[in-house]
Amino acid sequence: MSASRDQRSGSKRKILGAIRSAGRIARIDLAKKTGISQATVTTITAEMLLAGLIHEVPSDDEDRNARRGRPRVGLALRGEAHTVVGVKISHQSLSIVLLDFSGDVIGEHSAPLAAAVQPAVDVAEQLRNQIAIAAEKAGISMKQVSAVGVGMPGIVDATRGFVHWSPSLTERNQPFQDIAQDVIGCPVFVDNDANLVAMAELMFGHGKNVQDFIVVTVESGVGMGIVLGGELYRGTRGCGAEFGHTKVQLDGALCRCGQRGCLEAYVADYALLREADVGQNNKQSSARQIAVLLKSARDGDATAQSIVNRAGRMFAMGLANLVNVFDPQLIILAGERVQFNHLYADEVMDSIRQQIVQIDLPPPDIVIHKWGDLMWARGAGAFAIHGVSDMALKDLGEHAS
Amino acid sequence: MSASRDQRSGSKRKILGAIRSAGRIARIDLAKKTGISQATVTTITAEMLLAGLIHEVPSDDEDRNARRGRPRVGLALRGEAHTVVGVKISHQSLSIVLLDFSGDVIGEHSAPLAAAVQPAVDVAEQLRNQIAIAAEKAGISMKQVSAVGVGMPGIVDATRGFVHWSPSLTERNQPFQDIAQDVIGCPVFVDNDANLVAMAELMFGHGKNVQDFIVVTVESGVGMGIVLGGELYRGTRGCGAEFGHTKVQLDGALCRCGQRGCLEAYVADYALLREADVGQNNKQSSARQIAVLLKSARDGDATAQSIVNRAGRMFAMGLANLVNVFDPQLIILAGERVQFNHLYADEVMDSIRQQIVQIDLPPPDIVIHKWGDLMWARGAGAFAIHGVSDMALKDLGEHAS
Repeated sequence: MSASRDQRSGSKRKILGAIRSAGRIARIDLAKKTGISQATVTTITAEMLLAGLIHEVPSDDEDRNARRGRPRVGLALRGEAHTVVGVKISHQSLSIVLLDFSGDVIGEHSAPLAAAVQPAVDVAEQLRNQIAIAAEKAGISMKQVSAVGVGMPGIVDATRGFVHWSPSLTERNQPFQDIAQDVIGCPVFVDNDANLVAMAELMFGHGKNVQDFIVVTVESGVGMGIVLGGELYRGTRGCGAEFGHTKVQLDGALCRCGQRGCLEAYVADYALLREADVGQNNKQSSARQIAVLLKSARDGDATAQSIVNRAGRMFAMGLANLVNVFDPQLIILAGERVQFNHLYADEVMDSIRQQIVQIDLPPPDIVIHKWGDLMWARGAGAFAIHGVSDMALKDLGEHAS
Repeated sequence: MSASRDQRSGSKRKILGAIRSAGRIARIDLAKKTGISQATVTTITAEMLLAGLIHEVPSDDEDRNARRGRPRVGLALRGEAHTVVGVKISHQSLSIVLLDFSGDVIGEHSAPLAAAVQPAVDVAEQLRNQIAIAAEKAGISMKQVSAVGVGMPGIVDATRGFVHWSPSLTERNQPFQDIAQDVIGCPVFVDNDANLVAMAELMFGHGKNVQDFIVVTVESGVGMGIVLGGELYRGTRGCGAEFGHTKVQLDGALCRCGQRGCLEAYVADYALLREADVGQNNKQSSARQIAVLLKSARDGDATAQSIVNRAGRMFAMGLANLVNVFDPQLIILAGERVQFNHLYADEVMDSIRQQIVQIDLPPPDIVIHKWGDLMWARGAGAFAIHGVSDMALKDLGEHAS
């Protein structure tokens, strides 16, 4: 690709991104917002209109009144341009959403996985089957699906959809993107699940107008997604933004990863239940057992309080370290376990504030976002929209230049 | 500033940066490297030639032979365009370099500070006096100095040169940039000293061709500079990239910052000497006392070994956490204390490798860069060159558009 074509492709991405975040925007405002010349905006948006990615919409009345003149025509994404699927792979289940190109949800579906840990090809087959059911429920044929985004727990190199390790897969080093594309028959994009929660926050949630923020997810494990300058930060080898296995104690508690002193070894379900001496083979779900432990703590049981209290303090120490290193605008706590409040109790928040570097400016905001698996799936769908957009914009270039 | 002018200013910065990193480059290669159209490259470089920021240089023989035709004309920075000063403020001394616009050192000077902790205006006055001496030594008049860059230990918001806190200043919250500009009489740019080591590595050192790297400085304290995507990362409130005060132990050793469990409380000079029960009022310098402690450890003294060993393990834990969070290409260890090897002994390096997330790819490179205070000052000079370039490019825009 020549250098100027490379620049042109950057401009196309910028313009599409600006239309997406604005919802509806006039060409002249698009030029202002992106810093791209009006002539280039006109050319590129003409190509996008022709390709059906965007459409013209009349400006609203307010705008018309304000200008007292000829109504300005706005540009908006054309939802019908593409249908994508987003999937969250959880411990023992799949959560699926169907999104149109503008990100609106047009279908939802959940299903159990055959097993918690499986070969990659088995996971891919269950994905294909459940996506087909989800599509049928939404009245959409599989042929209409442009791409599938998958959020997978573990260490994932998203640039090539390569899974270094996942608790859901029996084998390490799986080219899951390739495997799933073969089985499903359409483009598949794979990333770490917490990264995709960050992407969902960026596209649909609390991060919409924030340049630098961190999402920390608390489920059975602890995950993180980092957004810097409005983009996901993934690291050099594709395994950055690891938080659960950062160390909070030298030679500390044994973690299920095999190392000692990881944050997860103090905060995750298994860590709390190990201390509470509740066998994990207990027939109750670990979520239920955690609920019982937290209730005991609230009811004044000293052992339960000691366990929960230390988890909160270790979590605060880890978050304070993130604030010291990144100095973000915002931290978003998300995930199934934020239904319990022990990790963002007042004492935890106070402890964070006490452990960050003290300057005479307020610390970053910390917001709690209680959303379910379908919202995680929506993040995976957002990643698929990203991938589809890149492919569509590349095609534009092929025809036009 | 209009949007298109904003874009134009981005292009100018890109072009100047590309000329700087290439040393000498033909216009056509500049267009390729930056992704900016040849027409724009021609216009902008013509303005830069007119303003005297760059000059034309003949291409070298190798290139001429390779092309067998008319020699291509290269563009290079014009060193004489500006003279800048870089200053490192250390515990009890100032280190000063004079650089030309291309970054070449044209003078050096060191001097003691009147006291280790002083009012901002006193520091500024000593800066002015010592810069004058440095300039005189180099045969340069103060009027020729276009700007001064200052590397200051502590928490600094570089965007406005505001010092939230510094061990060198008696008062918190000092607008040091404004104070120093008034006293010195030319533009002053102020940043955290470790950030400026990172900038020096980016412009002159191991980071020249690396997009994502981290510099960790070990002196009497522990500092960090983060480069992501080829640019310094400073955080939202201007106090990011804090490493020495990240916590490595819940309720751990007392740090001189007043908090508990900071990495510095295990690794810094004062921490080692506190454990060794060597009073800091000892007449020997702390560097000398540290040397004695390390020799005792090497000679088999069990207490000394225990102290040094734990410092190394805490340091390894902190570095492993950085690798987990950032997944950088490269980590550079720099600063006065890397003359001692206890923080990068084989066991420390092994310990880092054991505590990072295990994937089947090699861990990031860690290099040791033993450089002195004058190299830190060169980083401050690089920051001044940055500032001067921005001002010069802004002027270009004023005349041309």
